[in-house]
Parts: sequence; C-alpha cells; structure tokens
Amino acid sequence: MMALSQMSREQLEQEKAQLEKRYHAFQSRGLKLDMSRGKPGNDQLDLSNGMLEVLTADDYKAENGLDCRNYGNSDGLPEMRKIFADLLEIDPDEVIVGGNSSLTMMFDNIASNMTHGVRDGKPWGRQGEVKFLCPVPGYDRHFAICEYFHIKMINVPLHSDGPDMDMVERLVSSDPLIKGIWCVPKYSNPDGVVYSDETVRRFAHLKPAADDFRIYWDNAYMIHHLGEEPAKILNLLTECEKAGNPNMPLIFTSFSKVSFSGAAVAAMAASKSNIDYIKKRLTVQAIGPDKLNQLRHVRFFKDANGVRAHMKKHAAILRPKFAAVLDKLDEELTPYSVATWEKPTGGYFVSVNVAEGTAKRVVQLCKEAGVVLTGAGATYPYGKDPLDRNIRLAPTYPPLEEVKEAIELFCICTKLAAVEKMLES
Amino acid sequence: MMALSQMSREQLEQEKAQLEKRYHAFQSRGLKLDMSRGKPGNDQLDLSNGMLEVLTADDYKAENGLDCRNYGNSDGLPEMRKIFADLLEIDPDEVIVGGNSSLTMMFDNIASNMTHGVRDGKPWGRQGEVKFLCPVPGYDRHFAICEYFHIKMINVPLHSDGPDMDMVERLVSSDPLIKGIWCVPKYSNPDGVVYSDETVRRFAHLKPAADDFRIYWDNAYMIHHLGEEPAKILNLLTECEKAGNPNMPLIFTSFSKVSFSGAAVAAMAASKSNIDYIKKRLTVQAIGPDKLNQLRHVRFFKDANGVRAHMKKHAAILRPKFAAVLDKLDEELTPYSVATWEKPTGGYFVSVNVAEGTAKRVVQLCKEAGVVLTGAGATYPYGKDPLDRNIRLAPTYPPLEEVKEAIELFCICTKLAAVEKMLES
Repeated sequence: MMALSQMSREQLEQEKAQLEKRYHAFQSRGLKLDMSRGKPGNDQLDLSNGMLEVLTADDYKAENGLDCRNYGNSDGLPEMRKIFADLLEIDPDEVIVGGNSSLTMMFDNIASNMTHGVRDGKPWGRQGEVKFLCPVPGYDRHFAICEYFHIKMINVPLHSDGPDMDMVERLVSSDPLIKGIWCVPKYSNPDGVVYSDETVRRFAHLKPAADDFRIYWDNAYMIHHLGEEPAKILNLLTECEKAGNPNMPLIFTSFSKVSFSGAAVAAMAASKSNIDYIKKRLTVQAIGPDKLNQLRHVRFFKDANGVRAHMKKHAAILRPKFAAVLDKLDEELTPYSVATWEKPTGGYFVSVNVAEGTAKRVVQLCKEAGVVLTGAGATYPYGKDPLDRNIRLAPTYPPLEEVKEAIELFCICTKLAAVEKMLES
Repeated sequence: MMALSQMSREQLEQEKAQLEKRYHAFQSRGLKLDMSRGKPGNDQLDLSNGMLEVLTADDYKAENGLDCRNYGNSDGLPEMRKIFADLLEIDPDEVIVGGNSSLTMMFDNIASNMTHGVRDGKPWGRQGEVKFLCPVPGYDRHFAICEYFHIKMINVPLHSDGPDMDMVERLVSSDPLIKGIWCVPKYSNPDGVVYSDETVRRFAHLKPAADDFRIYWDNAYMIHHLGEEPAKILNLLTECEKAGNPNMPLIFTSFSKVSFSGAAVAAMAASKSNIDYIKKRLTVQAIGPDKLNQLRHVRFFKDANGVRAHMKKHAAILRPKFAAVLDKLDEELTPYSVATWEKPTGGYFVSVNVAEGTAKRVVQLCKEAGVVLTGAGATYPYGKDPLDRNIRLAPTYPPLEEVKEAIELFCICTKLAAVEKMLES
C-alpha cells in the first residue's frame, strides 16, 4: 500500500472501488454502534456496584458526628474534601465538594462572574464582549457554556505539550477583555495531551491585562491513567502561589468517571481566599450538597489510595479498547498517510485529524453504516473546525468487539473520504 | 392574670420581678437548645432509613431500562417525575426533577432571568432596578436570593387567606419593573397560612405590566399536614391556564422534609413550554441529575400514595411538638394579650407577633438563657421587621422535652420584654 498522495488517478479509482466494497459490506450488517460520548462502559460502572449498598440504615454519620441525612455543610463532608485534596495535592481548605457535576460548578462560576464579577469586581456582563481562549481541539461542553453566555471564543492551537503558550501570553497580556481560558491539563479532551512542566509554569506566570482573568483548569482526568506509569503534571495552584498569582486558577474535577457518571461527586479547588468568596454564593444558593452520597464515596474508597487502586481496575478494562483503536489506526491509516493522531496514555478519547475537508464526510459515512461518532466540528468553538479535519473517537462505552468493528469502519470511511476528495480535485 | 395594658405601674413591677425570677431559674440551668431552623428531627429522618439500603448491587435500572448509574436524562427519571406530578396534580411533562435542593432551582431560575431574560426576553439585569413582591412575614432564604441579585423587595402583608391581593394586583399591574412574587401557598413559612381558592384565582388572573413577570410558587409543604384533614389549595398551573396566563407560574417543591433533608430530590413544575425553555439551559449546565438517588426514592415510596402514607408518620411525630408550643402560648400569653399567632395545621413553623418593638429583645433574652431562635427580622426582607415584632419558632428539630422547655422560656421572655417596654414608656 502506498501513500494516497502518490497514487495515480487510476490507482485512486481502484482503491475507491475496494473501499466502497468494504464499506457496503459493513452497511449491510445493520450495525447500531455509538462511539460519540465519553461515557464509561457498563463493566466500568460495575466496579462501583458495591457503593450501592455500602451504607446501612444505621450508618449515616460523618467522622465529626455530623448527621449526613440532615441539612448543612455547604462545602461538603470534611473526609470527602480530604480525599479530593490528597488527589489534587492541596489543602482541604482549598476544596469545595459539590453535587454530582463539575460542569455545573464551572457553569455556575461563570454565571456568577457574569452578574457579580470576579470577587465583586465589575460584572463580566457589563464589560462589553468578554472573551475566552479555547485551546483546540477541546471539550464541546466547555464551549457550550461560553456560547450560552455570549462569551466570544478565540481558538488557540494545542500542541503535544499544551496550548501554544506564546500565543496565550501575547493575547492574555494585551487584551483586558480576555477573561479566561479552558484547560484540560492532563489527558486532554480529546487529544489526550499532558501539559508539560514548562507549560504549567508559563500559565502560573501569566500577566493578564484583566485583573479578573481566570484559568479554568478542568482536571477531569487527573487519575485516569491507561498505562502503568501515571503522567504527572505540576500543581497549578502551588505554581500560581509561587508566581504571585494565587487567585488566578480555578481547578475542577469529579468522580464521574471514577464511580457512577450520573451519581458521583464533583469538586472545585482554588486559593483559600477564592474558596471563601465562592462559599458566600453557595450559602445563598443551597443549604448543602448531598452529604449521604459523599459518605457513600468515603465508605467505598476509604482514602485517596483506595481511589487510585480503583482506577487501576478501570485502566485494565480500557487498555484493550484503546489498543484496539490505536492498532487499527496504525494498521489501516499509517501506510496511507492521510491522518494523524496522538497516542493517549490516559483519558477517554482518541482524536484523529483526517484529511483536510473530510471530517464531516467521514462522520456522515460512519453514520450511514450504523456508527455514531461525535459530530465533526464539535471539538471546536461554535462547532466550526476551520480545516474540517478533527474527529473525536470515544471508545470507552461500547464493548471491545463493537469498538473493533467501529474503528475498522472509521478507518474505511477515513480513507474513502480522502480518496473521494482527491478524485474531486 | 390580666392583660398587660391594664396593669398599674406597681403591678407591672411585681410582674417583672416574678418573670425575672423564672428567667434566672432557666438561665441557671445552662440550656443549649436550638429552635432556629426548620430542620426535621432525628426521629423523622429515621423514618426514611430504609432508603439507605433500598438499592442493591444489581438494582440500578429504571423502568424503561435506563442505567441510572451512567450519564443522561437532564430532566430526571420518568417514574420520579410521575410521583411529583401526581402529588402536584399535573402532567409529568410539566415537571423537571433536579438535584437535592429546590432552593438551588429557584436561585438558578432567577440567575437565568438576570442574564438571559425570561424566555429570551430582555435580561432582568439590563432593565434597571427590578423588583419582587414579598408577602411578609416570609422565608429568609427567598429574600436572600433577591438581595444577592440586587432585586428590590417590596413588602406585602400576608393575611390568613394569603397575601393582600388588592395590593398585589395594584402593584403588579402598574409597575413593569415588578418581575416576581415569592409565595409559599400552603402552610406558609412562617405563618402556616393556606391560600384560599379566591387568592389562587386572583393570582391566576393577574394582569402584570411586565410580560416577564413570574409567580414563584414554593410549594415546600404541599404534603406536610399536621392534622388528619389535609388543607387543599387550588392548582395554580391549571388556574393560570384557564385564565390565559399559562406561563406565569413557576412551581417548586422538594422531598427535603419527606426523606432526608440533605439528600432528597427537588422538582420544579411549569407549563410544558416553560419546561422546554428551561431544559435548554439545563443541557448546558449539567449532563443530568443524580438518577440513582431518584431511583432510591422511587423504590422506597413506590408512588404518590406511598409518599402520602409516609407523611402521616411525620405528622404523628410533629403533632405533639406543635401542640406543646400552641398550648403553652395559649396558656402563658393569651391572658396577657401581648402576642398573636396563627394556629398552623401543617408546615414547619409557628410564627408569633410579640409586643411591638420587642422581638429583638425576646430573641436576645432567649439566647442568653441558652435557646437559639431564628433571628428577629429574618422573616422580613433585608432582615428588617418594621414593627420589630415577628418571631419564627421552629419546633421540629429538638426532641419534645426540649421544645417544652424552649417554649416556656420563650413565653417568659416575651412577657418580660413586654413588661420592660411598658415600664420604659
């Protein structure tokens, strides 16, 4: 097999015919597969089934005697805060444990800044068109929050060691309407990229033109390693303190892909002073989070090491799925030279850049053969991938056999769309 | 014993000396009681302990086969929606089941209107000083939300059949900056008042000057009867539909005082068209509520009748506490003619109007003898009771014996403060 670019028109026509044959064979099988969302598989959820019965009718008190059934404790159970603090390597006083969704905590923080400003500064909603930097490709739900609040999004390329920091520094220091940046610093969604120490340090040393600039550090995959050797990132909170920017970072994480996606606990971390400010809103907003569910997590995991041990079981389930995807991509696409991708060592996705101008076509072809992928463009603000080439693959939810079928189809469609495109030109 | 107003100065002095003796006797006992918040007692929480173990490691699916452990269903489990719909006597399509707090749902609705307007109308935050009507006495946490969003609050007297509707109609129809009104229509917080059918119909027929006016109908105590004969209120949603105002009401309720205060489920209800609008925000805000906790509630209560049966057990625990309060008030305060109060047949509070200008003093006296009450003024916007006379008693949390002690002390302090006041003048 040779690179597409070196094929003659005749060779391309032949190749197309063969690919179409394979494609139609797939189509005739009436598949109905979904590789679109980063959901844990049923076997992963089973790992936590013990949590469904870990509490008993006489076990509802926290270490300090607090009755978790009743109202109170707007920042969460102390022992749950400690588990998050240990995992994030920070102080429990710098953590708020919330409900079941870190996305809700991010949304709410931005909603708060729109109406009340950052720490009672001028509300973002009254400063004209505020903007966020969005490393791309990125997480569609981050972008949806910005779009909802009419926050203008500016694309910043994501490299294999993090966002283009030259560009980030230049923009952040020159435009006071740039108020935030979305980061998934470890096993980024979708590329699986891990931010280098230098990247983290450059973040900590930013000199924003806006004094109400914030780094939204969504550490969603902090412990979601696939391999034996977990990737390490520097602690942004500590680095920001050292750099004299203690209040700049807001860190988010959750157990949505640790215990139960719909019924886990989420947390945010920030400087003590930021936390105190945020708690003031919390006390108006709610009388307290679901402490029984936090207690369930405490009983089930016991401590941070319990969580880490649990994550190894997730990794054992996910490794073969990621291997199936990466091996097939390598086998089918490398010789063709039509696509590039990172090889993630953690997280929930494989992100593939197919031939320019063909991502939409690939997703459509897959769909017409029964495999739903994340929509092309979803990994870019406003759903607009300027080169129409990035596709996010989410191999975690379907069983391994289905992943194998889906990725084979994806490879066929990727090649077919590329061949079609070359024949057009 | 005679009415205070008929006592001579000498009689007042004698009375004062006797009251001080009783007061000091209390003080020397070093009590540490809390009647400040509407929290269920431990025995009430015990009623739901079965819910802690109602799910098992292989019971996590909804009726429709949905795996409640995973992401999804932003508006809640269908069977949980049905239970709320049956209790509210509306259609399940008109219900969203959320997390553990109806307060959070109210807060969020107002936050949404501030930045995005009501159904994409002009944002409240850009209309100048928007206002809410606040029937008084009322719920401090409602007022805190308004204060947080800088919404000006206007007091409206609450009568024994609901708010002063002449005043409500006049204000709402004349001022386009009046955007909402807080109502607790059944067993109101704190008076325990039940809105009459006429009041509900007049609400439904309001002709607001603002087309983005909303009724915040916090039906927190919809099934929280104390007696055998539950109070009935008309269905606001139906009445508003009939009156051609289908989108005016937003109804909130929760199981916070049905199952576990900190770990229950909350719901909101509105026209289908309002619900569809609200869901759009919800899908940006979260990937879904905690469906396992909703399933726990479904398994435990089974249906609306199961909930109603459960509420009878709550009533049996609460009746003696309310009786102790009301009997003592009657015994100690009626002869004196220094205070008035409603006799609630449901809800969580007894609200007492003590002698004008003495509420703060009564609360202080109680505190100095070891009984914490809700702060004087808390039942009014901005914490300002213009007559300094309303005090909210919350007899549900302490055990019956403590309620008896606390209410006796309260009566002594109420009389003592009144006598002091008369002697001053």
